[in-house]
Amino acid sequence: MPTSPSPLVTLDRVHAAREGAAELGIDLLVVTPGSDLRYLCGYNAHAMERLTALAVPRRGEPFLVVPRLEAPMVAAGPAGALGLQVLAWDETDDPFALLARTAVDRLGAAPARVAVGARTWAEHALGVQRALPGAALELAGPVVDRLRMVKSPAEVAELAAAGAAIDRVHARMGEWLRVGRTEREVGADVAAAIRAEGHVGVDFTIVGSGPNGASPHHELSDRVIEAGDLVVVDIGGETATGYRSDCTRTYAVGRAPGPDVADWYGVLHEAQRAATAAVRPGVTAEQVDAAARDVIAGAGWGEYFIHRTGHGIGLDTHEAPYVVAGNDLPLAPGMAFSVEPGIYLPGRCGARIEDIVVCTEDRAAILNNGPRELAILAG
Amino acid sequence: MPTSPSPLVTLDRVHAAREGAAELGIDLLVVTPGSDLRYLCGYNAHAMERLTALAVPRRGEPFLVVPRLEAPMVAAGPAGALGLQVLAWDETDDPFALLARTAVDRLGAAPARVAVGARTWAEHALGVQRALPGAALELAGPVVDRLRMVKSPAEVAELAAAGAAIDRVHARMGEWLRVGRTEREVGADVAAAIRAEGHVGVDFTIVGSGPNGASPHHELSDRVIEAGDLVVVDIGGETATGYRSDCTRTYAVGRAPGPDVADWYGVLHEAQRAATAAVRPGVTAEQVDAAARDVIAGAGWGEYFIHRTGHGIGLDTHEAPYVVAGNDLPLAPGMAFSVEPGIYLPGRCGARIEDIVVCTEDRAAILNNGPRELAILAG
Repeated sequence: MPTSPSPLVTLDRVHAAREGAAELGIDLLVVTPGSDLRYLCGYNAHAMERLTALAVPRRGEPFLVVPRLEAPMVAAGPAGALGLQVLAWDETDDPFALLARTAVDRLGAAPARVAVGARTWAEHALGVQRALPGAALELAGPVVDRLRMVKSPAEVAELAAAGAAIDRVHARMGEWLRVGRTEREVGADVAAAIRAEGHVGVDFTIVGSGPNGASPHHELSDRVIEAGDLVVVDIGGETATGYRSDCTRTYAVGRAPGPDVADWYGVLHEAQRAATAAVRPGVTAEQVDAAARDVIAGAGWGEYFIHRTGHGIGLDTHEAPYVVAGNDLPLAPGMAFSVEPGIYLPGRCGARIEDIVVCTEDRAAILNNGPRELAILAG
Repeated sequence: MPTSPSPLVTLDRVHAAREGAAELGIDLLVVTPGSDLRYLCGYNAHAMERLTALAVPRRGEPFLVVPRLEAPMVAAGPAGALGLQVLAWDETDDPFALLARTAVDRLGAAPARVAVGARTWAEHALGVQRALPGAALELAGPVVDRLRMVKSPAEVAELAAAGAAIDRVHARMGEWLRVGRTEREVGADVAAAIRAEGHVGVDFTIVGSGPNGASPHHELSDRVIEAGDLVVVDIGGETATGYRSDCTRTYAVGRAPGPDVADWYGVLHEAQRAATAAVRPGVTAEQVDAAARDVIAGAGWGEYFIHRTGHGIGLDTHEAPYVVAGNDLPLAPGMAFSVEPGIYLPGRCGARIEDIVVCTEDRAAILNNGPRELAILAG
């Protein structure tokens, strides 16, 4: 909804992006519809072939380039309320030429380094490149991700509200997850509940029953749930302000699983607890990953934990920081991410436990608080 | 839904893309999640930071690069059914290096020209560039759009079914569009009806009442509909196979508008008819635009028709061909696009009439068939 209010956004963000670009020697930032644009100026635009872009030169005023037919809407919306200059282009104009000309004017020279949003479409990135042939194109992540990664208290409150809402959905899982129903039927009920609990959109509803649970990104199938199934339920959505929820719990349907499952599920639970306990400022993202991985590997299940431990979350479900080997980023207060180890037994079943956590001054604040023990549903 | 069946897709599409690339001297096509990927190999993947890409070298077998945790799902899905080779990468691998290495192997040399999908994310496009530093990056549109633009009879049938479904929603507009209700309330009812009529997703619900109708991309607001309002209702969604609907009708609520409105609405209606009548093979896209524009300008309303006449439609709501001045593409049988002139009176109201049409051997087949006259709803 392009005109939804964004009380969280102030012009400070654009100014911080400009300062960040200048520090890194980047002459021009170009950000197109998506979460980067929404974060920086509150404009929740549809991604479309017509160019909409926020241009932030390292010197001079930032500006928005928008299709003329959307200019009144943009001016009346959050970006207009920030006082950002809106430059409109007509259907037969070249919007990239308008962007380039204006940026060169503000900079007093052609930019040498231009950074585009990570999720900017290639047709727009290469359009900018064509209009500024002397510039080297790079990604804006080092500027924009650095800002987006550290959530303000108001953003943490949004994520906490999203987390509480998705916890309420999980709390009702016994109503839907029953023997004889298909994953798809369960998923439809869960999706309706995600909306009913206050989300404006459903991002994903993974219901991985029995052997489907061994495929971490399995979504929904027509498989009928059987007594004795383990079922991985990983669900999330978008709130009105754009912040996301994402929480996984694993359920046993109809009867308790055998002692072998209880054994490795206990290892998984301990790994999730260990990774969460490792979170504090200065610890690196890969150390959090290792905290989970060491527990699982130490118990002999390492080869069945086939993905990273987590991902940042905010206006995107997946964003920086990624909790993965090789990421030596030190955590800082305000960083929000998932902690979600899993164990997957191909052809048989899987389990995952996922919470969203926020790094505070001395520990992790946990935003999902439903029970993490293997819940046994009546079936 | 990554595993949804795609009976429309055969390996012919990938082979045609390979031939098209070779004809244009492009060494390597790289297509990431989105409609290009779904079109070429049936894989309806979530766009995500982890690289998923179909690589089509001009020589040698095409291949998919996918995250290992999704590899079993991909192999079991439509792309696997086509026999496409699936190369999996682990969480700490560099997937761009894997893609580059494999492509160079198949080509027998480093590619000089690499084309990426128009909507490929910059982080993926620049990742490919980094792994193939000697290659010049360009857009895959000249290859992939040329294929996607011309719909097969089976694809036309999908678009026709989507069109009939959205026509059924418009036919029920009197149930929802009433004096005293807000645009947002109407939009929610319309969205529910779009799903109820057989779409799996709602792409947009524009309800532009009174002065909001003068902003073509206005969506929904809390404005309360008043007697005498003109209301622009532009709605569309996605069917199970991924094909899209998009249809606009304008309604008068509560009472007939004055003779001035009837006058220019008649001009608009005539323009929409003229543009549709202009459609046949060999006529250019810009000639169809001109056919609508000439009628409106000839009657003195030219300055109030502020956008192009239409856009192609298929797996994306907006795709090639664009019906706009400057596009001298000759139409060919199978091309599907919107014909949607509008007249917008700032601060007052607007009107638009939009049908999806398909170019046949000698004319336009019209896929939206609800009445185009200004409907007067009881209110």
